[in-house]
Amino acid sequence: MSNGVNVQALLDAREVLKGAPEAAQFTWRASSKWQHGVHSTTKIEKFFGLGQEQSHKNESVFEADHPAIFAAEDNGITPIEYLLVGLAGCLTAGVASVAQNRGIKLNSVEASVEGGHDIRGILGADPDVRNGFNDIKVVFTIDADASPADIEALVAQSQKRSAVFDALTNPTNVTVEVA
Amino acid sequence: MSNGVNVQALLDAREVLKGAPEAAQFTWRASSKWQHGVHSTTKIEKFFGLGQEQSHKNESVFEADHPAIFAAEDNGITPIEYLLVGLAGCLTAGVASVAQNRGIKLNSVEASVEGGHDIRGILGADPDVRNGFNDIKVVFTIDADASPADIEALVAQSQKRSAVFDALTNPTNVTVEVA
Repeated sequence: MSNGVNVQALLDAREVLKGAPEAAQFTWRASSKWQHGVHSTTKIEKFFGLGQEQSHKNESVFEADHPAIFAAEDNGITPIEYLLVGLAGCLTAGVASVAQNRGIKLNSVEASVEGGHDIRGILGADPDVRNGFNDIKVVFTIDADASPADIEALVAQSQKRSAVFDALTNPTNVTVEVA
Repeated sequence: MSNGVNVQALLDAREVLKGAPEAAQFTWRASSKWQHGVHSTTKIEKFFGLGQEQSHKNESVFEADHPAIFAAEDNGITPIEYLLVGLAGCLTAGVASVAQNRGIKLNSVEASVEGGHDIRGILGADPDVRNGFNDIKVVFTIDADASPADIEALVAQSQKRSAVFDALTNPTNVTVEVA
């Protein structure tokens, strides 16, 4: 039975990193350039972890812009939509990993994500409205060789260990500086 | 003087939406499919806002995976890195918009973003370590026809109105369900 996740490597990493906390310190990096209007391009390739510089096998390039109804050119998705991409990817990776660990074969996993957003916040139309999402809802549709209760438990465990779920549901300190 | 941002349209929208809060309710959407291992593909195209269904001019497709050092295939950036893409794009869009509104011509804007992450959290190696970022640091390098103090003020105002900055620094309610 395999969902393609090397769970043994992850369990081994857990044991090794228990005794080597400094190796567990990762730094993820992105560099962006403003293009024109509200359009920017962000590139991701290198990161730091396991005590040394690391690299993805390829550089990835992402465009962010605002849609035409915001009087912009729609050269890419909006910045806030990238958070939904991250959330979907993280929870799905978790479902696959937990299923592998529990011996559950996945046939298909789909997630639909919706983020409610009152744009009066970012426009400065109402100081009582926050800038970010009001709430986010994720609905999974999973076909697996498991009972509905076991599938529910997969999703619950994925949520419990999700980096992006934590980053969205709990505060992170973000500092912004000019060089 | 133009940075390419239609600030007048945004100021007009602010006034209109003050009297029409229901039109300001947006829903951003993403749909993802598990591929293999921890690799998933997420698509974004439609959204809801200004009281009706809307669409980006194109569908955008994003791959998320884990790198080779996590015993995965590195078919795309990690889910948590998508949060850095969103943050860079949002703050940069804000800098361009605020500069336009203040009559400041931008020559170039670059941002480097770093997210510190102790992966013992997601691996379950230490229950006291959180799953998400420890902290995030953004450094802007801006060339503009303005004083250093005015440039600092642009960045501060962008942060104050940023959807993604808010979403990362404050909690959002996220519900996860199985259909």
